[in-house]
Amino acid sequence: MDGADDPGEIVNESLDLGYATLDLDRARRQGVAEVVYAPGKTTAEITGIVTALLAAGAGPVLVTRLDRAVDVPGGAYDAAARVMVWRPAATRSVDVAVVTAGTADGPVAAEAAAVAAAIGLRVREIRDVGVAGLHRVLARTGELRAADIVVVVAGMEGALASVVAGLVAAPVIAVPTSTGYGAALDGVTALLAMLSSCANGVTVVNIDSGFSAAMAAHRLAMTIEAARR
Amino acid sequence: MDGADDPGEIVNESLDLGYATLDLDRARRQGVAEVVYAPGKTTAEITGIVTALLAAGAGPVLVTRLDRAVDVPGGAYDAAARVMVWRPAATRSVDVAVVTAGTADGPVAAEAAAVAAAIGLRVREIRDVGVAGLHRVLARTGELRAADIVVVVAGMEGALASVVAGLVAAPVIAVPTSTGYGAALDGVTALLAMLSSCANGVTVVNIDSGFSAAMAAHRLAMTIEAARR
Amino acid sequence: MDGADDPGEIVNESLDLGYATLDLDRARRQGVAEVVYAPGKTTAEITGIVTALLAAGAGPVLVTRLDRAVDVPGGAYDAAARVMVWRPAATRSVDVAVVTAGTADGPVAAEAAAVAAAIGLRVREIRDVGVAGLHRVLARTGELRAADIVVVVAGMEGALASVVAGLVAAPVIAVPTSTGYGAALDGVTALLAMLSSCANGVTVVNIDSGFSAAMAAHRLAMTIEAARR
Amino acid sequence: MDGADDPGEIVNESLDLGYATLDLDRARRQGVAEVVYAPGKTTAEITGIVTALLAAGAGPVLVTRLDRAVDVPGGAYDAAARVMVWRPAATRSVDVAVVTAGTADGPVAAEAAAVAAAIGLRVREIRDVGVAGLHRVLARTGELRAADIVVVVAGMEGALASVVAGLVAAPVIAVPTSTGYGAALDGVTALLAMLSSCANGVTVVNIDSGFSAAMAAHRLAMTIEAARR
Amino acid sequence: MDGADDPGEIVNESLDLGYATLDLDRARRQGVAEVVYAPGKTTAEITGIVTALLAAGAGPVLVTRLDRAVDVPGGAYDAAARVMVWRPAATRSVDVAVVTAGTADGPVAAEAAAVAAAIGLRVREIRDVGVAGLHRVLARTGELRAADIVVVVAGMEGALASVVAGLVAAPVIAVPTSTGYGAALDGVTALLAMLSSCANGVTVVNIDSGFSAAMAAHRLAMTIEAARR
Amino acid sequence: MDGADDPGEIVNESLDLGYATLDLDRARRQGVAEVVYAPGKTTAEITGIVTALLAAGAGPVLVTRLDRAVDVPGGAYDAAARVMVWRPAATRSVDVAVVTAGTADGPVAAEAAAVAAAIGLRVREIRDVGVAGLHRVLARTGELRAADIVVVVAGMEGALASVVAGLVAAPVIAVPTSTGYGAALDGVTALLAMLSSCANGVTVVNIDSGFSAAMAAHRLAMTIEAARR
Amino acid sequence: MDGADDPGEIVNESLDLGYATLDLDRARRQGVAEVVYAPGKTTAEITGIVTALLAAGAGPVLVTRLDRAVDVPGGAYDAAARVMVWRPAATRSVDVAVVTAGTADGPVAAEAAAVAAAIGLRVREIRDVGVAGLHRVLARTGELRAADIVVVVAGMEGALASVVAGLVAAPVIAVPTSTGYGAALDGVTALLAMLSSCANGVTVVNIDSGFSAAMAAHRLAMTIEAARR
Amino acid sequence: MDGADDPGEIVNESLDLGYATLDLDRARRQGVAEVVYAPGKTTAEITGIVTALLAAGAGPVLVTRLDRAVDVPGGAYDAAARVMVWRPAATRSVDVAVVTAGTADGPVAAEAAAVAAAIGLRVREIRDVGVAGLHRVLARTGELRAADIVVVVAGMEGALASVVAGLVAAPVIAVPTSTGYGAALDGVTALLAMLSSCANGVTVVNIDSGFSAAMAAHRLAMTIEAARR
Repeated sequence: MDGADDPGEIVNESLDLGYATLDLDRARRQGVAEVVYAPGKTTAEITGIVTALLAAGAGPVLVTRLDRAVDVPGGAYDAAARVMVWRPAATRSVDVAVVTAGTADGPVAAEAAAVAAAIGLRVREIRDVGVAGLHRVLARTGELRAADIVVVVAGMEGALASVVAGLVAAPVIAVPTSTGYGAALDGVTALLAMLSSCANGVTVVNIDSGFSAAMAAHRLAMTIEAARR
Repeated sequence: MDGADDPGEIVNESLDLGYATLDLDRARRQGVAEVVYAPGKTTAEITGIVTALLAAGAGPVLVTRLDRAVDVPGGAYDAAARVMVWRPAATRSVDVAVVTAGTADGPVAAEAAAVAAAIGLRVREIRDVGVAGLHRVLARTGELRAADIVVVVAGMEGALASVVAGLVAAPVIAVPTSTGYGAALDGVTALLAMLSSCANGVTVVNIDSGFSAAMAAHRLAMTIEAARR
Repeated sequence: MDGADDPGEIVNESLDLGYATLDLDRARRQGVAEVVYAPGKTTAEITGIVTALLAAGAGPVLVTRLDRAVDVPGGAYDAAARVMVWRPAATRSVDVAVVTAGTADGPVAAEAAAVAAAIGLRVREIRDVGVAGLHRVLARTGELRAADIVVVVAGMEGALASVVAGLVAAPVIAVPTSTGYGAALDGVTALLAMLSSCANGVTVVNIDSGFSAAMAAHRLAMTIEAARR
Repeated sequence: MDGADDPGEIVNESLDLGYATLDLDRARRQGVAEVVYAPGKTTAEITGIVTALLAAGAGPVLVTRLDRAVDVPGGAYDAAARVMVWRPAATRSVDVAVVTAGTADGPVAAEAAAVAAAIGLRVREIRDVGVAGLHRVLARTGELRAADIVVVVAGMEGALASVVAGLVAAPVIAVPTSTGYGAALDGVTALLAMLSSCANGVTVVNIDSGFSAAMAAHRLAMTIEAARR
Repeated sequence: MDGADDPGEIVNESLDLGYATLDLDRARRQGVAEVVYAPGKTTAEITGIVTALLAAGAGPVLVTRLDRAVDVPGGAYDAAARVMVWRPAATRSVDVAVVTAGTADGPVAAEAAAVAAAIGLRVREIRDVGVAGLHRVLARTGELRAADIVVVVAGMEGALASVVAGLVAAPVIAVPTSTGYGAALDGVTALLAMLSSCANGVTVVNIDSGFSAAMAAHRLAMTIEAARR
Repeated sequence: MDGADDPGEIVNESLDLGYATLDLDRARRQGVAEVVYAPGKTTAEITGIVTALLAAGAGPVLVTRLDRAVDVPGGAYDAAARVMVWRPAATRSVDVAVVTAGTADGPVAAEAAAVAAAIGLRVREIRDVGVAGLHRVLARTGELRAADIVVVVAGMEGALASVVAGLVAAPVIAVPTSTGYGAALDGVTALLAMLSSCANGVTVVNIDSGFSAAMAAHRLAMTIEAARR
Repeated sequence: MDGADDPGEIVNESLDLGYATLDLDRARRQGVAEVVYAPGKTTAEITGIVTALLAAGAGPVLVTRLDRAVDVPGGAYDAAARVMVWRPAATRSVDVAVVTAGTADGPVAAEAAAVAAAIGLRVREIRDVGVAGLHRVLARTGELRAADIVVVVAGMEGALASVVAGLVAAPVIAVPTSTGYGAALDGVTALLAMLSSCANGVTVVNIDSGFSAAMAAHRLAMTIEAARR
Repeated sequence: MDGADDPGEIVNESLDLGYATLDLDRARRQGVAEVVYAPGKTTAEITGIVTALLAAGAGPVLVTRLDRAVDVPGGAYDAAARVMVWRPAATRSVDVAVVTAGTADGPVAAEAAAVAAAIGLRVREIRDVGVAGLHRVLARTGELRAADIVVVVAGMEGALASVVAGLVAAPVIAVPTSTGYGAALDGVTALLAMLSSCANGVTVVNIDSGFSAAMAAHRLAMTIEAARR
């Protein structure tokens, strides 16, 4: 922890496409290139950005929240996850468990899993093990404890995050979903509940953001890999 | 279910003390006299109301949220519960389990237990079995299943309500507490979470209201007792 | 209330359908099999789950919030309630009154009534007796007092819950509805108002959740039936 | 309704005291001089404003939310209402009923009653007739119907406003109070509930503002009196 | 103010249509029959209720928030107000000014005006006089002061209510509208602002509820008319 | 507008005091040194920071929200504004009008005025001209129009900001205050109302932040002064 | 700052079109005629208002939030900004930089830029320089410092406003956008964050209101231009 | 990731102290014994729990939010952090940087640092580098990049979390603080902003919870250490 205190190491790499200013230093700095968030962009803009990112680097390129495949060669579109990927990364030896409380949490978990897999993490999905039938999650305790990182995806009251965090020692990244109605407040209730968890050290990302959970897992994987070196 | 549709059965029994209009028909109608909520009343007013209620009926008289005993003969003051009781009811054969997630939920549970006991319910308290160490509540499953009614008292994310409701078949009355800070929003988070529980048929009362839980239990006990007759 | 404290009694019965992990122990544990919530599931998934539940047990199987009947033999679809039922339970001797404040509360009351009936409860519906014309509810006092359990369904300010709870001794389960606009905040106002009721012992379930009210009634009925034995 | 459209009729009467700019045209324009709100003002400032108002006109002068009497001759201090009055108005033939749901609503009702009386309205107070014991308010129906204006003061869920508005034809001014805790949200719940009332034509003023209710009643009285002429 | 305290005067007049329980005592009690709120009702239900109300009384019958005319003879449909009226009342000598801040507040003002006119109030509309160009409202001061009741319809920050209430002595009924976006919070900002008005005695009804304002005006008109007798 | 695009011009001037890292480049970059916010700092820390800032530059040094003077020579403490100033700036030819709606807004206006004066702006205070008596603000139109910048300080519904912004062409900086209670929501209502103003181009700063308004005025003064050169 | 205190200078110029009351004094008073906000107006109304404004003055006439061009000769429609302009103003020597954090903030920035340009301000757009890749905004520091006024358009957490305000001395007008989902709360999070900025003197306008930012810039430009004279 | 799916591995180790049920399996399961949260517990209870935990295991024992030292031998009390520690862990080779935006964030950072140090993490504190003077944090980029885990503690708008997360590749745990007033909403604004960060993979814990951040860091450290083996 004795890095040089040098603002000069801010690298001024960017590409102005007119409609976007790409951060071409991102992959060097954080291990993955900018991920393209599709909503609010035209197909032409998405195509242009993907093409530019493919040209600028060698690693994976991803688009999320994409309603249908765009026409850039070499990509694979995952409709359940609404994610499209070019040049997925080689598998890294970091295990992520993605756990859901109910069937309705599936699309968010799919996004988390697809993004994590595209950047090389090993993913195990454990579905529909909400706490109303506690034996379902208890039966998976072994799998959960075997993971390096656990992503818990849950809506309604989000209690699964607390229960899982009580069972494992690994980092728990909780993703509240907008599942449930009325008092579930479109995911705000699960968000607040996860932040207020009685289980120590649960961390939380934005509502329905499987992507954020995957990127948080990526940050940890970067540190784990550095630790192994 | 063929009661006479007669508004005439509205009984016009009340007593105007100037500072309060007592509902003297309450005990006949609902099995317990009006319970006195102390905040906002002077000691003289509390004393006056208690004296009037003792004179008007034969059953238990209670004051809740009372900071110190008032001087009306025959009462017993419970400091932990902040409840004072005159003429507690004889024990009824209805079992209520009062469960807490953490030590900080204690005062609310104490109020629920004291009120329930004063009106004759049999109370078993199960303390500090929050889901972060799940084995604690699992170890009490038998006791929980033996109860006719389960009151779950929990703050923070309130996950214990969902877990307990998944384990038992009996009615679950969830009491959110103002335990926790920041995103716990003084109990609002637990309240919303309990209302959004993935476990079926959980019912919820107001934040920190052990009293409401006890009275909801009383309503059910009235029905159980009627069923036994 | 001397149950064995044995976590070993957690029964590990579940069925992994890939898209769902069914809790096959639910009917044994709580008297009714898992109820299927249709939104977010494909027709194929609903059909698959219903078929599996029918195969795994002998009791009623229900789907709620279903927009049209699915093609599994033996089911009856109730369009007003948006509920489909297979193998409804025999009638149990527990009476539930379902009361609404206004016409717009009808669909939520219909769900509560349909689910309650499917699991064997005897239901009496009392419609459109909001407090703006108080004589309407007063005229039904006899019917309300004859019920073992009262479900009050109301939107806007939800005042009917307080009025009914003041008239009867039985358990009152309040269901706020998203009726009303502006300051009614899609049911949040009725929810908060019911939780703040001046009538003792009112319990509350999630906004528009007739289903939750019916399941809470089921829990009460389980206890009442146990008491009769 | 054919008033002259003349902005020139804006009368430029004001008095700059340095710490305050008094609107000396208020009594001419609206029938009552500016009422002094004590919080945030020093005793010297209150004394100065009262003295100036007494000098500038001939009608009643009032200070609200005043913790103790100030030293300006001729005033009467009402501790329960926290109101001090100089030169109260002669009684006007307009009847206002001020109704409360519970004892804790008393101080707000006292402020409404004291201000209304000081400006000449005839006030009848009806206390502690909340809807949990409905016969209490029904017993007062005659008195309520005899009033020209009804002010309903209630906290918690505020249901009394809807019930009273269903019983009377007169204007109903609802005052939510900060009574109740937790889900009562310091009066916000009663406020929202009163605004969402199923009874037609209920109007609402700010939380705990007995003063606003009295001034709204004053506006109504101005119109009633004009109608009589 | 010496009415008989007799709950017996609750008149038990209602009509059960199956889908609705009509309060047939409403016109006697409050001067106008129940007004039908169209949303959530089928055309057949609306037709049935209107027919029943026409048969049960002799006064005006109204439907609000109606998207197109229903087929019951004798009605007039006002598309701007979305109100349909049968047997409008004769004109009463009570003047109501309906003022708007901007063009977008028009539909809410139209509802207020249509309902008020249908029940016999004399309406003057003053449009688009928001405070950003203050001379517009100042130019109408004479008309405003000539009214018995002033209804102020405004969205965004709702400042017009305070300004008008400072200019007139008559009752001011403020109607917040859902005009504006972002921080206007669909009318909640205007609602809160109007409740917090620095002008004394402003009363407020629900967001976008021109109907409530008209009914509040009706209550006042009842009292004015009684005063004249 | 053709500045050199050079991140190298980020100047790395800071001073680490252990408990604080002072931005010594601030005065060069923005015309005023860091202003010290007292809450949460010990007297020793405040003294240390002030001493360091006095040593590091030549311009004014300020502490805000200070309950009593600290012992550093050369400072002047303004108790009404709770501001202490060393080396106030020479007067600059920029006029700022600070207008309040009511007496209770005084402390916030005092902070705005004191900070503005300390950094050399010419301040005119216009007090207590809320819109309930509109003639008060109209009488000051000339003064308002003579200012280069108008700061409007108002609580409750904040309507004064809209009215003033409709009268003047200059920049209007609105400061909501936590004046008012209940629905005023501790200033949130005024904040939302000011952001939703129907008058064009009103800008808003944080609740009760007279300081922020003064600094926003300072930014504008910097531009005005540059324009004059 | 010694303007005549004369309310007589309120000029009573307005034009009643029936559906709107135009403030014809606006251009004289504030330098730009009323800008027409299209939502909620019919095409005929928009056409009528534009025609009247063109006839009444000589300066620019604008319509915002317009989905397609209206048929009034001489106008230019900007689809990206959804703004239509007649008689744009000659260029004034005031420079405004409009900066966005991401591509999704584009439409709001386009509205700000189009309105600013139409009223004669010189606009430089700097796109997609959010803080996640800080070098992007640092690279534009020179351009930012060359502007007289900086408008920062950002959604999500809105951090760009604080960073830019720390880099420049000029006035910063922050526009929160409804970009982002879940905890971004449709722009409320960015709004609150900008209001709470640790950078001094940031001012804020309503969510997504590029128009308000442009008008605030216009007010600043009026003052700057006056200063130059 | 092929753990045995065995709920039997739930270990039933707990100790019932009457006022608390200690989870004695916690250290085995998660590497650290239960940490005692002092608020709501008596000194005797804290002493009892600490004594029991010291007896039951060999690792560190901690009490947080403790206002003064308790009398159990061997403990060290840190007043700034309000943490007391017995048997601190040996230093582990995991580096945590704890960064604050301002001086007022100090106590929360101190709690994070004290807890992290007590469980053996190596902590580097970087204080008062908020984004208003961006060069302060840029100057520390090297230190930040040298850490395995970065904890960012910030109130107000919380922008520092986004800026730091854009600079480093390691996991970022953001702790919102209740610093700031008004629109900062006691930390809710920073919380929402951090959850909405434009920088990828930021995770968030509860407001003011330095403890949660330390425990999240501990979970990460457990995984890093496992990876090294």
